Order: sequence, then structure tokens, then C-alpha cells
Amino acid sequence: MEILYILLVLLLVTRAFGELVVRLGQPALVGELISGIALGAIVAQYTGAFPILSDLSDNHVFLAITDLGVFFLMLYGGIEMRPSELAKASTRSFVIATCGLLFPLAVGFGIGWWFFSDSSYKIAQCLFLGTSLAITAVPVAIRVLMDLGKLDSRVGKIIVSAAIFDDVLSLVMLAVLTALARTGELPEFGGLLLLGGKITLFFAITFIIGRYVFPRIGRLINRFHAEELELSVLLIVAMSFAWLAETLELHFILGAFLAGLFFGRRAVGDATYDDVKKKVSGITSGFLAPIFFASIGLHMDISAVFTVPLFLALLVFAAFASKFVGAGLPAYCLGLTGIESATVGVGMSARGAVELIVADIALRAGLFEHPEPTPAIIEHLFSAVVIVAIVTTLAIPMVLRWIFVWHGTNEGPTDGGDESERNEDKQGA
Amino acid sequence: MEILYILLVLLLVTRAFGELVVRLGQPALVGELISGIALGAIVAQYTGAFPILSDLSDNHVFLAITDLGVFFLMLYGGIEMRPSELAKASTRSFVIATCGLLFPLAVGFGIGWWFFSDSSYKIAQCLFLGTSLAITAVPVAIRVLMDLGKLDSRVGKIIVSAAIFDDVLSLVMLAVLTALARTGELPEFGGLLLLGGKITLFFAITFIIGRYVFPRIGRLINRFHAEELELSVLLIVAMSFAWLAETLELHFILGAFLAGLFFGRRAVGDATYDDVKKKVSGITSGFLAPIFFASIGLHMDISAVFTVPLFLALLVFAAFASKFVGAGLPAYCLGLTGIESATVGVGMSARGAVELIVADIALRAGLFEHPEPTPAIIEHLFSAVVIVAIVTTLAIPMVLRWIFVWHGTNEGPTDGGDESERNEDKQGA
Repeated sequence: MEILYILLVLLLVTRAFGELVVRLGQPALVGELISGIALGAIVAQYTGAFPILSDLSDNHVFLAITDLGVFFLMLYGGIEMRPSELAKASTRSFVIATCGLLFPLAVGFGIGWWFFSDSSYKIAQCLFLGTSLAITAVPVAIRVLMDLGKLDSRVGKIIVSAAIFDDVLSLVMLAVLTALARTGELPEFGGLLLLGGKITLFFAITFIIGRYVFPRIGRLINRFHAEELELSVLLIVAMSFAWLAETLELHFILGAFLAGLFFGRRAVGDATYDDVKKKVSGITSGFLAPIFFASIGLHMDISAVFTVPLFLALLVFAAFASKFVGAGLPAYCLGLTGIESATVGVGMSARGAVELIVADIALRAGLFEHPEPTPAIIEHLFSAVVIVAIVTTLAIPMVLRWIFVWHGTNEGPTDGGDESERNEDKQGA
Repeated sequence: MEILYILLVLLLVTRAFGELVVRLGQPALVGELISGIALGAIVAQYTGAFPILSDLSDNHVFLAITDLGVFFLMLYGGIEMRPSELAKASTRSFVIATCGLLFPLAVGFGIGWWFFSDSSYKIAQCLFLGTSLAITAVPVAIRVLMDLGKLDSRVGKIIVSAAIFDDVLSLVMLAVLTALARTGELPEFGGLLLLGGKITLFFAITFIIGRYVFPRIGRLINRFHAEELELSVLLIVAMSFAWLAETLELHFILGAFLAGLFFGRRAVGDATYDDVKKKVSGITSGFLAPIFFASIGLHMDISAVFTVPLFLALLVFAAFASKFVGAGLPAYCLGLTGIESATVGVGMSARGAVELIVADIALRAGLFEHPEPTPAIIEHLFSAVVIVAIVTTLAIPMVLRWIFVWHGTNEGPTDGGDESERNEDKQGA
């Protein structure tokens, strides 16, 4: 039972680091990533001492388990999100979300175009960098706003609904990226049209099932007799959606996320929703997600910091600045105050788990191996993007707190309820 | 994501059949096994149509997932069981348990010795058959007694505590069997002594940790800050115990079971216990256990019924009779009434999941491949044992009900409270 040994070591190390980091007031995700990085460095140093751990990237069983981790992370992400927020959101949120996605996407693509060597994979690599900058981590933003008691304020609502738009849009980006990574080249016009058709078809089918079939199953669910059938039904739907996405040559995480999105209180009732959500949370945060974060850390090479320091610094700066300008400026133009616009710009900058999932997909697609010999920047691109995820996830809560405190001392609280309930939920997904 | 497709198909089919069977008043386990058998027959018929499903036995990822299923099944089995029941149990229970284990073990060994062809694996095969007859499924017995409101009666208490003894003892048998299956031959006296030492060492270490370290962790657990850390800690302990068992060349399921056994209300407190138990139940019954039962069904060949009908009939008869005599007779000698003794004998006859796990272990150890060419009985031994598990799990509840009804109409209820709470918990593990 080699896999039990691997899971034991990874779970022990990640959770211990995660707990430590949470006590320091940071999301567990950061600790789990860092523990993976540390473990990777140790294993690389003493290969002989950890034979099983040193060739994890060739271990199909381990890769499948991390895939399951990604599946549950996206499913749980979907469950946590309320699609009704999307319906309530204003045109303003949509404009902010779109600009906040397209501008970083363009900046990332531009940086890639400027820095990357020519190869048939260049466009895919640039698009990867763009997508990774375009992502907004909704949970990180939501948790910070909750901590500050600003979730129900005008700016809080805009951030949340814009971030949800962003998440869905970046999944569409991911579908394009996945299709690209298969061939390495941008498809012809006909190919793009086909891809657009597939994406539309996927969203249409899942929407119809999620909107009209889910509530019917939800009403049936309470009449089931077999044990734990509610959880099984959710998994079956999520796996079906995932299978549909893969069949359409999109990525399976779209399916998992959408199944979670449609699994709401209204569809299945409060009791079932709470019960199943708790169980998915347990599987995700208590078991599989830490394993996935560790696997990302294990793949990372901290030497990127010394090998391509300027590129890395530029990337981190671009990650902040592009979201700040891309989301903050439209907010200001649409009538928000300066301080509110700054809050929107900063609040949308956190990246978190989805960026890691995108990086993992690109890694497996072999995007960081071309052209040969691999230039230093491409070789360290994966690590650089992981570092961006860590830095933004760490910095955004601090900057947001600082803005609110500064705002508060200058103008006093002008909006929002003060439900500063202690939020134990730190797994910044 | 081949594995997601496999999991989707198996989960969909097993849970649908499971629900159907529960509605007919039988344990879900039976439906999930039968669905696996049906699926296996269909896939074998139309190999071309299901390329991924037709070579599951060579799929390392799938095997690892079923191993995880076994791990969670044993962990949950341990959690559900209360070790305090063991301490309260009388000498009478211990005698009944020991006889109820040794007699079927001897009968199974004898049948094997009589029927099996000579080969270096003969002793291991005989021991396998003995062990599979010696097993008692505690949950099946407990659920039937609960349904009948007889769990707190004198005979109910004896059955439960004797069944728990049996479970622990049969795990020791399993350790011997695992060691045997590695070499195929019974070890020398020195080897047996070494094995005994390892088993003692394993139980000693896990007992010390479970009894003295667990409650300390339990008190710490409520002070943890990271999300879902309680579940992670249980998994880490269970995986450590599993790793210890494997290191001592025993079997990992011992570790999982014992970790669950020591995870009790007293060690971690009511809230944590209930929360973690629910989550493990979800992962087990809602996700991984049905996959394991399906994999057993897929391996089974229903043609055993036609190829070795006499051997199969003898085995089913021996499964009932050996427990009826082995547990019932000592009960009668120790002062129970005739009807109580019959109840004990029947109640201890159910097999369930542990027998399937033992069969799976023997299958993977290649126990059913010797000598070459494989005789029909050995070739169908796996399927025969699975059929015994299905038949006993199906028949025992009916026979027990019949005994109690007959008993009730003749003498009226003489003992026990009547907490006939509706038991939705049908996953006969």
C-alpha cells in the first residue's frame, strides 16, 4: 500500500504546516503549499532516503488522487458559491468583472509575448500566463470581507458578484487553454468556432439539467432509503458533468464546478444541503485538497527566485497592478468613490487554488518543456506562477485590512452591516 | 480522466441497485454486489463496447481506489464499534466467540483439505476458506437485533460482544493468512513465533497509542484552528497504524480498523466524534465502499453456480451449520435456553464486508491460481465465497426474525427493551 504511505506523509506534513500558518492568521492553503515546497526540497536533496516520494510525478496512482483533489476542490468551490448572487448582480458588476478579467489577461499575454522564446507553444504559454493573471479567487475575497464585516456593504457586494463572474469567465478561458494545450497552436477560425460551439453546448446542457432536473432530483432525494445516497447523487451528477466536459474536449473541472454551483438550498432543501456540504468539505479540506496543494509544492522549484528574479518581480507587480487598474478603474468610472474603487481593485487580486489548478493543467500538458533546450524563464514559469498565487493570497488580506482601517479612521464606517463573526474557515480555495 | 469515468459508471450502477434492494428490505451491500456481478457479465459479453471497464483488474489506479475503499470500510467499522462493550463482556461471550470462530475455521480448513488439489498453496487456500467461514459480520447482526428491539436483551448483548471478539480474532487470522499468502507455505516454528511476536507488537503499540495518546490528542483537537483538522488527524492516525501493520508484514486493514476502534466519544468528545463519524460515513457509504463492492462483483463469476454446484451447496450449508453449532452449542452448555442458543447460532452466521475484504486479499495474493492448470473448484473458490457472503447476509435477518416471531408467539417476549427505532442504516458492512 504505497499510496497510503504517500498520503500519510503528505497529509501529516501539510496539515501540520497548515495549522501553524492559520495560527499566524494566514490561510491554510499557504502553509500547505509551503510544506509541499519544503518537502520537495528535502526529498530532492536526499533522493535515496525517500525512494517512493522522489518519483511522485511518474506515479499514476498519485496523479489520479491529486486529480480527485482538484475535482473535489472545484465541486466544493461551486457548492460554496450562490448562483443567485449572479442573478442579483448589477450591470456594474458585470462591466467590472469583464474589464478585471480582460485587462490582466492582455497584460499577462503581453508579458509572455515579450519574454518567451519562439516555439509552436508560445501562444499557449502566453495564454496560460494571461489566464493565470486573470483569475480571481472568490473565497479569499469573501473571507476577508467577512472578517472585516464588509460583505454586505455596496463594495462588498460588487466584489463578490464580480468575482463570481470572473470565476465562470476564467473557466471558459481555461477551456480555450486546454484545447490549445492539446495541439500547442491556436486553432483556425473554424476550430475557434467549433470550440465556441462546444463551450456553449456544455453550458446549455448543464444549465438545463442544473436548473430544471436538479430540483426534481432534490425533491426525490428525501425519499431515498439507502444510506448516504444524497452525497452519491451529487458525485454522480458532478462526474457526469465532468465526463461531458472531457467528451467536448473542455476540462473536467468545469463539470465539477457547475455541478456544485447548481447544488443549492433551493434545489435540495436546507437539511440535505448542509449535510452534503459538510461531507464534501471534509473530503476536500480534510483529505484531498492538502494532498493537491502539496503536489503543487513538490513540483515547485524555489530556485526561480534566484534564477529569474526580475521576471518574477514583474509578474508579481503585474498581478497586483493589472487587477487594480483593470477592476478599479471601471469601478471609479461607474461612480464608486476612490476608496471603494481601490478596495475593488485590491479585493479582486487574490488568486488561490484555481490559479494552482490552471498551473497544474499546463504542467501536465507539457507547456513548460518547449522549445528545447528550455529557456530559464519557461523552465521556471510554473514556479513563478505558484509564487504569484502565494504572494497575492498572503498580501491581499493585509492590504484590504489596511485600506479599511485607513478608510475607517478618515471617514468612519459609512456602509455595511457589522457581522464580524469569527471566521474559522481559512482554507483560501 | 479515465478514473472519473470508471467511478461514475460504478457509482451510478451500484447506488441505483443498492436503493432498489434497500426498498425490498435488504442491505444495500447485497444490491451493490449484485450490480457489480451484472455489470461484470455485461462487460465480459461486450468487451469492445466498454474498453476501459473490461480491463479494470490491470488498472492500478482503480485498484488503489478500491484499496482506499477497504481502508475506509474498516476505519468506519472500527468507529461504529464500541471497545467498551468488549470490556463489559462476560467470560461466556468470550467462550462463545472463541468456539464460534475455531469450529467454523476447522470446518472450512477440513473442507478445503478434502476438496483442494495438492499444491504448495494448499495450506494457504485451506486457511483462507477457514477464515472466510470463521468471520462474523457485527453490523448485520446489530442491525437485525435493533430492528427487532432485542439489542439490549441478554441474548442480544451476548451476540454483540461475541461478534466483536470474533472480528478482532479474525483479523489476527487474517494477519496469519497474509503472511502465508506471501510465501504460500506454512512457516517453520521459528517463523510462527516471529509472526506471533509481530502481531503482539502491533496490538501492543496500537493499544498504547489508542489508550493513552488518543485522549491527549482528543483534548488538543478542540483547540485546532485549521479547517477539518479533526478528520485529517483521524486519517493520519489510521494511515500510521496501517503503515505499521504493513511494515510488520501484517495487513493494512488491521491498522485502519484499530484506529477507528480507539476513536470514541470518550477520546475526542461527543461533538467531534459525531462530526467526524458522519464524514467518514459519507466517504465510505456514499463514495468508496460501493466502488469496492462493485469491484468484488466484477471479479465474480456467476458460472460457479453451474460448474461446482455441490461444493457451493456444501459451503453454504457449512457456513450456517458451523456457526450454528460452533456458537450455539457452547451457549446452550453455558446455560442459555434452547431458543436463545439458536438465536446466538444464527445471529453469528452473517458474513458481510469483512469476508469480501478477505476474499479480495486472497485474490490479489494469487491464491486462486495454483496449482496449474487450476482445478475448477479453486478457480471458482473466490466466486463461491462471495456467494456465501451474499446468501448469509440475505438469509440471516429472515431466519432471526422468524425465530423471534416463533419465540414470541410461543412464550411471549421475556426480555429486552423495545426500542424498535426505524433503522435507515442498511449498508450491512
